[in-house]
Amino acid sequence: MRFDIITVLPSLLDSPFAHSILQRAQKKGLAEIVVHNLRDYAKNKQKSVDDYPYGGGSGMVMQIEPFAACIEKLQAERTYDEIIFMSPDGETLNQEIANNLSTKGNMMILCGHYKGIDQRIRDIYVTKEISVGDYVLSGGELPAAILTDAIIRLIPGVLSDETSALSDSFQDGLLDAPIYTRPADWKGHKVPDVLLSGHEAKILQWRDEQQLIRTRERRPDLLND
Amino acid sequence: MRFDIITVLPSLLDSPFAHSILQRAQKKGLAEIVVHNLRDYAKNKQKSVDDYPYGGGSGMVMQIEPFAACIEKLQAERTYDEIIFMSPDGETLNQEIANNLSTKGNMMILCGHYKGIDQRIRDIYVTKEISVGDYVLSGGELPAAILTDAIIRLIPGVLSDETSALSDSFQDGLLDAPIYTRPADWKGHKVPDVLLSGHEAKILQWRDEQQLIRTRERRPDLLND
Repeated sequence: MRFDIITVLPSLLDSPFAHSILQRAQKKGLAEIVVHNLRDYAKNKQKSVDDYPYGGGSGMVMQIEPFAACIEKLQAERTYDEIIFMSPDGETLNQEIANNLSTKGNMMILCGHYKGIDQRIRDIYVTKEISVGDYVLSGGELPAAILTDAIIRLIPGVLSDETSALSDSFQDGLLDAPIYTRPADWKGHKVPDVLLSGHEAKILQWRDEQQLIRTRERRPDLLND
Repeated sequence: MRFDIITVLPSLLDSPFAHSILQRAQKKGLAEIVVHNLRDYAKNKQKSVDDYPYGGGSGMVMQIEPFAACIEKLQAERTYDEIIFMSPDGETLNQEIANNLSTKGNMMILCGHYKGIDQRIRDIYVTKEISVGDYVLSGGELPAAILTDAIIRLIPGVLSDETSALSDSFQDGLLDAPIYTRPADWKGHKVPDVLLSGHEAKILQWRDEQQLIRTRERRPDLLND
């Protein structure tokens, strides 16, 4: 699976893609992440990729031409299953969408910056608009990193323990139970007895109960779905 | 406003905090971001900060001792308004929470990694648990960067145009209207006439209508709130 990420700030993404699971997935050849500098596709000498909005208003708008040139160059090289635009007014990312995208092939991810991108890019090229949540950020770069991380960790072979991703929060529609590790007693704060009992059936029962309690307390909406 | 971020992967956050608005806010002295390496607070020779979960199961759990040592050292140096743990089972981040946090003073942000952190850290130290969305990621580092970005751009003086943040999506409970910039005609794809009309009242009316149409189509839940 290949991810082509188009941005005006490619170096912002240097460190997130060079660590942890995203690095491991690339080293294992399970995912390829290529970051493209949108300014390389600017046609003017100043390498500018934005201009004032038609009709007035604050902020700058990213122009269609550089995006079109970059997207069409990539499309000439290979087929893409999705061209995704990260935007607060897109479909809200959830685990189901991440699961679904993890079964796809190549993907382009467009990052907006400044006030946003010319609507025609969205109308002509974009196949999917995704929001990471109902809040505004400086640009689409961190959301692109979030989306890439959420997808790549689901690709079989990426996580060392294959059961890990399936036992995560949300995969069974419930939040996780509390977890504990050594020491069993830290300044009088003790680990629940049941977890130290060695009684596997009781531990499973306790975890199931805790998952339900926590989900009911914190996210009753997940139980109603 | 000072942000102390505690993580096992401090270098993952190098590039997001060195660019764009986060860099500008720090240069202007409006925000300070300090990233702490949790391993510096490990008491063993191997600098390990995790161990197997009590009661069995996949994945490793981050121990209480290194977090406690780092948090208590920072608390001895200054007062913190919030100690935030980034977690998929926390309160879901939205613009209202970001607005509210932007008025606070110093904040600690704890990043989990591996399977999660010992529950006692959450019970004893954490004052607020925040989720960036209903999806699972490799760790709390990217969510910490998202939260920091969402908050810092709201601090007065950080954005060059003070009206910019207030005219963003969600600040008036509606999605943004489509935006356009030059050229007015791109391969036959034209900018809506009204935006080229110079008629300010009509442009405002069109934008209001488009905001409502887009919100109704994409996020009717925002209109019902």
